[in-house]
Amino acid sequence: MEQLSRPVSASYCETTHVVLPNDTNTLGNLFGGRLLQWLDISCAISAHRHCKRVVVTVAVNHVGFDKPIKLGDFVTIHSHVSRAFGSSMEVWSDVSVEDQQTGEKIPCNSAIYTFVAVDHAGRPVKVAKAVPGTEEEKKRYEGALRRRQLRLILSGKMKPEEATELKALFTQ
Amino acid sequence: MEQLSRPVSASYCETTHVVLPNDTNTLGNLFGGRLLQWLDISCAISAHRHCKRVVVTVAVNHVGFDKPIKLGDFVTIHSHVSRAFGSSMEVWSDVSVEDQQTGEKIPCNSAIYTFVAVDHAGRPVKVAKAVPGTEEEKKRYEGALRRRQLRLILSGKMKPEEATELKALFTQ
Amino acid sequence: MEQLSRPVSASYCETTHVVLPNDTNTLGNLFGGRLLQWLDISCAISAHRHCKRVVVTVAVNHVGFDKPIKLGDFVTIHSHVSRAFGSSMEVWSDVSVEDQQTGEKIPCNSAIYTFVAVDHAGRPVKVAKAVPGTEEEKKRYEGALRRRQLRLILSGKMKPEEATELKALFTQ
Amino acid sequence: MEQLSRPVSASYCETTHVVLPNDTNTLGNLFGGRLLQWLDISCAISAHRHCKRVVVTVAVNHVGFDKPIKLGDFVTIHSHVSRAFGSSMEVWSDVSVEDQQTGEKIPCNSAIYTFVAVDHAGRPVKVAKAVPGTEEEKKRYEGALRRRQLRLILSGKMKPEEATELKALFTQ
Amino acid sequence: MEQLSRPVSASYCETTHVVLPNDTNTLGNLFGGRLLQWLDISCAISAHRHCKRVVVTVAVNHVGFDKPIKLGDFVTIHSHVSRAFGSSMEVWSDVSVEDQQTGEKIPCNSAIYTFVAVDHAGRPVKVAKAVPGTEEEKKRYEGALRRRQLRLILSGKMKPEEATELKALFTQ
Amino acid sequence: MEQLSRPVSASYCETTHVVLPNDTNTLGNLFGGRLLQWLDISCAISAHRHCKRVVVTVAVNHVGFDKPIKLGDFVTIHSHVSRAFGSSMEVWSDVSVEDQQTGEKIPCNSAIYTFVAVDHAGRPVKVAKAVPGTEEEKKRYEGALRRRQLRLILSGKMKPEEATELKALFTQ
Repeated sequence: MEQLSRPVSASYCETTHVVLPNDTNTLGNLFGGRLLQWLDISCAISAHRHCKRVVVTVAVNHVGFDKPIKLGDFVTIHSHVSRAFGSSMEVWSDVSVEDQQTGEKIPCNSAIYTFVAVDHAGRPVKVAKAVPGTEEEKKRYEGALRRRQLRLILSGKMKPEEATELKALFTQ
Repeated sequence: MEQLSRPVSASYCETTHVVLPNDTNTLGNLFGGRLLQWLDISCAISAHRHCKRVVVTVAVNHVGFDKPIKLGDFVTIHSHVSRAFGSSMEVWSDVSVEDQQTGEKIPCNSAIYTFVAVDHAGRPVKVAKAVPGTEEEKKRYEGALRRRQLRLILSGKMKPEEATELKALFTQ
Repeated sequence: MEQLSRPVSASYCETTHVVLPNDTNTLGNLFGGRLLQWLDISCAISAHRHCKRVVVTVAVNHVGFDKPIKLGDFVTIHSHVSRAFGSSMEVWSDVSVEDQQTGEKIPCNSAIYTFVAVDHAGRPVKVAKAVPGTEEEKKRYEGALRRRQLRLILSGKMKPEEATELKALFTQ
Repeated sequence: MEQLSRPVSASYCETTHVVLPNDTNTLGNLFGGRLLQWLDISCAISAHRHCKRVVVTVAVNHVGFDKPIKLGDFVTIHSHVSRAFGSSMEVWSDVSVEDQQTGEKIPCNSAIYTFVAVDHAGRPVKVAKAVPGTEEEKKRYEGALRRRQLRLILSGKMKPEEATELKALFTQ
Repeated sequence: MEQLSRPVSASYCETTHVVLPNDTNTLGNLFGGRLLQWLDISCAISAHRHCKRVVVTVAVNHVGFDKPIKLGDFVTIHSHVSRAFGSSMEVWSDVSVEDQQTGEKIPCNSAIYTFVAVDHAGRPVKVAKAVPGTEEEKKRYEGALRRRQLRLILSGKMKPEEATELKALFTQ
Repeated sequence: MEQLSRPVSASYCETTHVVLPNDTNTLGNLFGGRLLQWLDISCAISAHRHCKRVVVTVAVNHVGFDKPIKLGDFVTIHSHVSRAFGSSMEVWSDVSVEDQQTGEKIPCNSAIYTFVAVDHAGRPVKVAKAVPGTEEEKKRYEGALRRRQLRLILSGKMKPEEATELKALFTQ
């Protein structure tokens, strides 16, 4: 039997990569496109762990590249589903780089992707609700509805005036 | 001497890829992470053509994956800078797939990236203004300010109440 | 209904690549084998756009590597079918590198490939004639018959004395 | 001290690849561009073994793709320098596929590349003469001068009437 | 100041991969060479986390491929340093595959690698001792001395009669 | 009819690679994981040449990385089956690097892998015996039984006291 809800923690995915020469741009830093590829895989694993279905990327909502990541750096990606809406899931990824002397993990990027669960014919299927646990997860859960309205507006599937949650942000 | 402005058309970049087995996910469709990598390179070329500087990816603002792209498909990516702000540039990419009988190019995705121009020490440098030509380019130019406010809000660098352009969208 | 002829321009294919570390040889220049791979894909797209069929590489007739291409260069490949013969098509690719200050595209290599159109059982199928438009296209169209004779001689499928077009070149 | 001549056999290079999914086109056959990459590396090793210098690809003179090579096939490439001219070397590669029941190696393609030896500033340096041993090597050595004239004509560096060796082929 | 010892848990490394078409052999299973590459990176990260130095692979001591891993599987690799000897570290990796219905992680392979810490001139440097915590870690710590003797015998650097720990295993 | 035995020489496989930037770690040396991948393919070809069946990697028994291999080096791998046991085969690979001035091949690593022959349903099938020819091959053939016992002990499939051949090594 399908589960009606799952804790966000059931979707945790952790992966560590080493930046090899093959992953760098002409400045010797991690090439943006390669990080996007790593993020896509990590988020897809989280989405799958939440819904136990084949998942496909529907949108990249936001990826910020705040600090350059260098050749030889250890890049750790933590992903989790932040909220589910019908058949779609918002997934967050946090990227950190390890200080190679102290081992401290320094946050450097974060990313938000949207996935949808599909059956073998590629039709959307309903997924379990995601139940946030930590304070951070609750905050992301809360914001997900506004981001979803934003995404639908950006892709022309919703009118600004219909986005009541988002509108409230600007009109309070 | 540096140019003060450049037409958007000076940043056009066109690239066609064939989806090979190496580019597919387990459904036999183009893997999202691979398309993100192709988009990143195409947008970086457009940004460079606009500013003639080294450019680095600052953010992926939005990528929508509207239709699955299949093994063997011809994927054409058209990019152009839509607007410049100081040292940063918003770049749009339109993805189309070719009907292999008629040759017609069917739009399937679009993406918005932000790049920044840097000098050899990695410090931001001011770029020329982008002057839109076609109706489509003018529309994207207009929307860029609102999207920039959105991006700054999402990354915590601007407060919603300061985003006057964006606010207007919801309060009219 | 199959078309009997198509203009050469219907087969145009343009692609721009950035030379990343992964594409270089031990001198830091674009690795010859990688350029050959990019050329093969670009020519295959042109061949397909001409015939709307599955195409397979039959021969590489000539690729000249006149100038080294460096790490970070923007490499643009323009391909087009130059002439069709029954089920085979000669395809030309012109490679240029972009001056990163002026944006000028500097021609650096050219390549000639031969493709054949096949049905799903891999049997050759007849393709439309290619009708050249520009002066350059007409010149390449004219030369294609001589190059075809050359290729057949080199692969042992034609005797030198039968290559009347080619022979004329040396005996005038 | 530099050697004045070396036997062709000193440049032999043998390599066997397995065709993996990553190497195939959408028909499930070895992708032409990938074989060109393998050939380029194999020929470069032969050229280096002959001259003990850094070598760069100058031209692909001819590659024939006579039979499709399939996923899972064992592809063996044998290369050798066929003749040296000043600082340039013509290199032949013979491609065979192994019958997986009998182990018999079935010839399927051959390729001719031209390399030039360079010093660390990239300037051409003179190489040893290549001395053919077997009948096959002698035949290829003989033909190399004609093919060199062809290549120079094709790249616009020689006029047809100056290509005396090649001319003889058509006027006898 | 360098630390004299570190808990084994300080070297934990977790990574999850999805088996994409690019990673499979001609049976559609994860290609052994690809898993070896993933294991090498994961073990290198653990070795580095233990010693905070550049590390190089010295030996692969044992990798067992007990069950085939399929296209689309989620492969999780857990690594940790099991024991340090002077400048060298034995590292274990446990590979599991996730049941895509239940999420259960099914152990399928394990691997033992040896790394050595080096300074920038590539000379070995002494590393901290590794202090095992769990029962499993203690068992692996105990066995490491015998495996080290085995490795030295296999590479001809120790005589069987000198391997007292290992000898005891057979003579009790 | 299946052959009952084959000489070891029937399984010889030779392959030469050039170390390209894509193959290096952050020290500019050949990345261990890449060499493991090359070794896996080379050993698989040898195993297949011995048994004419689909083969799968069962274990990596030992790989020693004795000397760093550098960017631009020519790496030659020679593999051969050393002994067959029922459906499994021990395969040795010897890695050498070429001195680029003298052409001398300097041995630098060796590796031992175990493969098993399977039918199309993945079930083990019996293979021919391997008959060693050279002194080196005889020595490796002799040692294979002890190494097999070791491998079975390491993977928990044999008790130390049952490994009579191996035991003899320590108790004489």
